[in-house]
Amino acid sequence: METLYVIKIGGNIVDNPALLTECLQAFASIKGQAILVHGGGKLATSLANDMGVQQKMIEGRRVTDEETLKIVTMVYAGAINKNIVAQLQSIGVNAIGLTGADGNLIQAHKRVHDTIDYGFVGDIDEINSNLIESLLVSQMKLVVAPITHDGQGQLLNTNADTIAQTIAVGMAAKFNVHLIYGFEKEGVLLNVNDPSSVILKIDQTNYLKLKSEKVVFEGMLPKIDSAFKALQGGVQSVIIGRAEKLNDLINGTIGTTITI
Amino acid sequence: METLYVIKIGGNIVDNPALLTECLQAFASIKGQAILVHGGGKLATSLANDMGVQQKMIEGRRVTDEETLKIVTMVYAGAINKNIVAQLQSIGVNAIGLTGADGNLIQAHKRVHDTIDYGFVGDIDEINSNLIESLLVSQMKLVVAPITHDGQGQLLNTNADTIAQTIAVGMAAKFNVHLIYGFEKEGVLLNVNDPSSVILKIDQTNYLKLKSEKVVFEGMLPKIDSAFKALQGGVQSVIIGRAEKLNDLINGTIGTTITI
Repeated sequence: METLYVIKIGGNIVDNPALLTECLQAFASIKGQAILVHGGGKLATSLANDMGVQQKMIEGRRVTDEETLKIVTMVYAGAINKNIVAQLQSIGVNAIGLTGADGNLIQAHKRVHDTIDYGFVGDIDEINSNLIESLLVSQMKLVVAPITHDGQGQLLNTNADTIAQTIAVGMAAKFNVHLIYGFEKEGVLLNVNDPSSVILKIDQTNYLKLKSEKVVFEGMLPKIDSAFKALQGGVQSVIIGRAEKLNDLINGTIGTTITI
Repeated sequence: METLYVIKIGGNIVDNPALLTECLQAFASIKGQAILVHGGGKLATSLANDMGVQQKMIEGRRVTDEETLKIVTMVYAGAINKNIVAQLQSIGVNAIGLTGADGNLIQAHKRVHDTIDYGFVGDIDEINSNLIESLLVSQMKLVVAPITHDGQGQLLNTNADTIAQTIAVGMAAKFNVHLIYGFEKEGVLLNVNDPSSVILKIDQTNYLKLKSEKVVFEGMLPKIDSAFKALQGGVQSVIIGRAEKLNDLINGTIGTTITI
């Protein structure tokens, strides 16, 4: 089977033009099939401020009311996605930017939650693996914005880590899939203030220990949970580390490797 | 050869949810291949106001400075394009939304002009007819936002009428192409205040007369010039009329038909 890299880059990379360029250059040098999933970044918040739309967060997640959905659609699917695509095109990558609505790439439903109304936030039902495969086979590299749809005309704000994981799992029957979570740190750190304290490998046993000792916490937890889900779903490897050092992450020489 | 409808809808349709829905329902009922090119609308202007970005117009055309480019990218490629795609998906159309950067669909260059600097405005060099054909053959309908790129990483604001015309001509070797300019009026009117005064046919001879008598003026001139270019480029027919009555325009029972 052919190799497919599913690479997620976070908002801090998107916000930093120099790091983003470095990351995209590394992406351009990948041999084999590749999909880039990008997160949001600060532009949505600053646009919301400009528009006088108050941002509401619950447990670190943005509550997506109608105005906020409009903003994230503009910023994620418009500004960020198209600038990444244009930049990739300029360095020889035939990129195509998509949301979950395009070609019915990712169908989702509005999140159902007992106590909290997250608004127009989508939990993924299904990815269109045939479309992904046919675009990859046509020598295109996909750039996916974290916006999905419910098939009833409603766009939905959707976590980019989860999109990357779901695409990785959904393609595992057709490709040798490697999932990379690129962000602004060296990897999962033993000491959050010491970049040299990268935990090289996390398996389910030491993850429980790291969690109970609160070494791993907050934003990192869903990322690692997502990594385990990917591995259980047939993904070959998951590596977390500095987005701009994508080539070294792919080679496995840096970052944190998650294993089951 | 198979039939392909290239349909452009203007900003006034995009701004009116009821008309847009009617238009998209008609689009969904088209038998055969179809591409929808959409214009901008008022959202870009209102967003510019919110963001404190002053809009500069020269001869009815928006001057696209860096901030304005960011705004139109967000609004055209983000908000408008993705909402149209999601709406089409909900009525059974497998739509895919694209800018000119996506898959290198439309390459352009920054407009060169002796006296006026239009800013980041693109004049089209080439469309990617192979990509368009392969997406159409895969049973998708394309929804194209009026944003192109220069292949050097620069996005460019590009006239939607011109995009529609260029795509129509570019596909004329592979399909029987019909070009429809859908907008908020019955067609080209003899008396701009009388919707029943539609000029049924315009050829090059009566166009000269209509121009010299100033019956046809301003925004309509580039549209009709564009229509003639399309016909000279091998497009089968060009019809101008009410966007939401797309089916009747396709049947040729309403609107203004341009012929050479």
